[in-house]
Amino acid sequence: MKCTIEYDGTHFLGFQVQPKGRTVQGEIEKAIKKLHKGEDIRIQPSGRTDAGVHAHGQVIHFDSPLAIPSERWMMALNTLFPDDIVITEVEIVDENFHARYDVVKKEYRYFLLNQKNRNVFRKDHTYYYPYPINLDQILEGAAYLLGTHDFTSFCSTKSDKENKIRTIEEIEIWKDGNEIIFRFVGNGFLYNMVRIIVGTLLKVGQGKLAPDDIKLILEKRDRQAAGKTAPAHGLHLWRVWYEE
Amino acid sequence: MKCTIEYDGTHFLGFQVQPKGRTVQGEIEKAIKKLHKGEDIRIQPSGRTDAGVHAHGQVIHFDSPLAIPSERWMMALNTLFPDDIVITEVEIVDENFHARYDVVKKEYRYFLLNQKNRNVFRKDHTYYYPYPINLDQILEGAAYLLGTHDFTSFCSTKSDKENKIRTIEEIEIWKDGNEIIFRFVGNGFLYNMVRIIVGTLLKVGQGKLAPDDIKLILEKRDRQAAGKTAPAHGLHLWRVWYEE
Repeated sequence: MKCTIEYDGTHFLGFQVQPKGRTVQGEIEKAIKKLHKGEDIRIQPSGRTDAGVHAHGQVIHFDSPLAIPSERWMMALNTLFPDDIVITEVEIVDENFHARYDVVKKEYRYFLLNQKNRNVFRKDHTYYYPYPINLDQILEGAAYLLGTHDFTSFCSTKSDKENKIRTIEEIEIWKDGNEIIFRFVGNGFLYNMVRIIVGTLLKVGQGKLAPDDIKLILEKRDRQAAGKTAPAHGLHLWRVWYEE
Repeated sequence: MKCTIEYDGTHFLGFQVQPKGRTVQGEIEKAIKKLHKGEDIRIQPSGRTDAGVHAHGQVIHFDSPLAIPSERWMMALNTLFPDDIVITEVEIVDENFHARYDVVKKEYRYFLLNQKNRNVFRKDHTYYYPYPINLDQILEGAAYLLGTHDFTSFCSTKSDKENKIRTIEEIEIWKDGNEIIFRFVGNGFLYNMVRIIVGTLLKVGQGKLAPDDIKLILEKRDRQAAGKTAPAHGLHLWRVWYEE
């Protein structure tokens, strides 16, 4: 079973089940267990998300012995889910399908609220950033990140991944009203990679770094060289692609 | 002092101070009190809003002995306010100004989420209504509400107002993606009036009432004749107008 899900990360400690506290995985598995009369069924996401991070198109898979048409699955699970998780698509797939291993590419978006005042309606979903920024400089700096690079400088030191080489296929950054949206599409993202990239590009936007410093930071392969990790609540896992 | 404020009504028991529980007025007066070294200062809103109702452009006034420029007021209060209330404008006005008595007209908007699935990001700010509706029928029915009428049928029986005659100057209803937005501008709105109008128009949109039934319902001057009160969390006090 392949499900596309949307969740508001505000009231979760993250995706992955933890000994204590509310998690996306915990809530989903609780609902699935109810549908299976108490049987524990494990779900697999395309990847975890941290506390506060949102998802518009997270993908999970699980195996079920039940023979239910996909439309019914959706209704049944959405009824059992809390109001900050919803399934938007269910597909009955080959049992070899794996939500993590089969990912072809992923899209993340980061939302910045760039205005003087806070906005009470967007506070949990955008990073409130009331400082002037130069979007042209940011775009120029971001261009250095396109393509295949060793992203060690843009990866949390807590990462346990050996190989830090990833490919960013697309970067788009645009204004929508007072929000600035950063869009990244790539074959994989390291731990905190998007948030560190955004934090660093904001230094470029403020004139604290030159656009071509991004190139130097990449070359240093040192997390210390990059900027701060932008806050979790501006980050949205937007879409996950699989082979057709 | 005239302040325009925005608030997310989700975590308030309403506007007006109550013996127990968090209210918009309570939080605002607490912040103002801090600025005045413990002195209690009462605020006056353009009108109260119920629990769950949001405001984009609520207006309040209060009198202060402090001589602070308006820009400073805004900064100081926004720093003291919780993250679900924000001041967007401060104007130092004549001391005769009264936020309630001087209202010329008000605008309310009601947001409906008209799609099959819930939306986790809009759940607190739109009324999730997954049923098919006929917008043309709604528009035809809404036209009967324009102008000056006795709105007794569209007023909560809990209202203590004697005079139920009000004028609705503008009604607009449009689709924006999967949301349907109802916009009402009038010289005054009775208790629950917008929510009862929306609840009744939804019956027209579902074909349970004919558009011209709205005319009959108005004439009956009986709350029982109209439809249900639509939920509070879809309602947004959008703007309040005063004489220049």
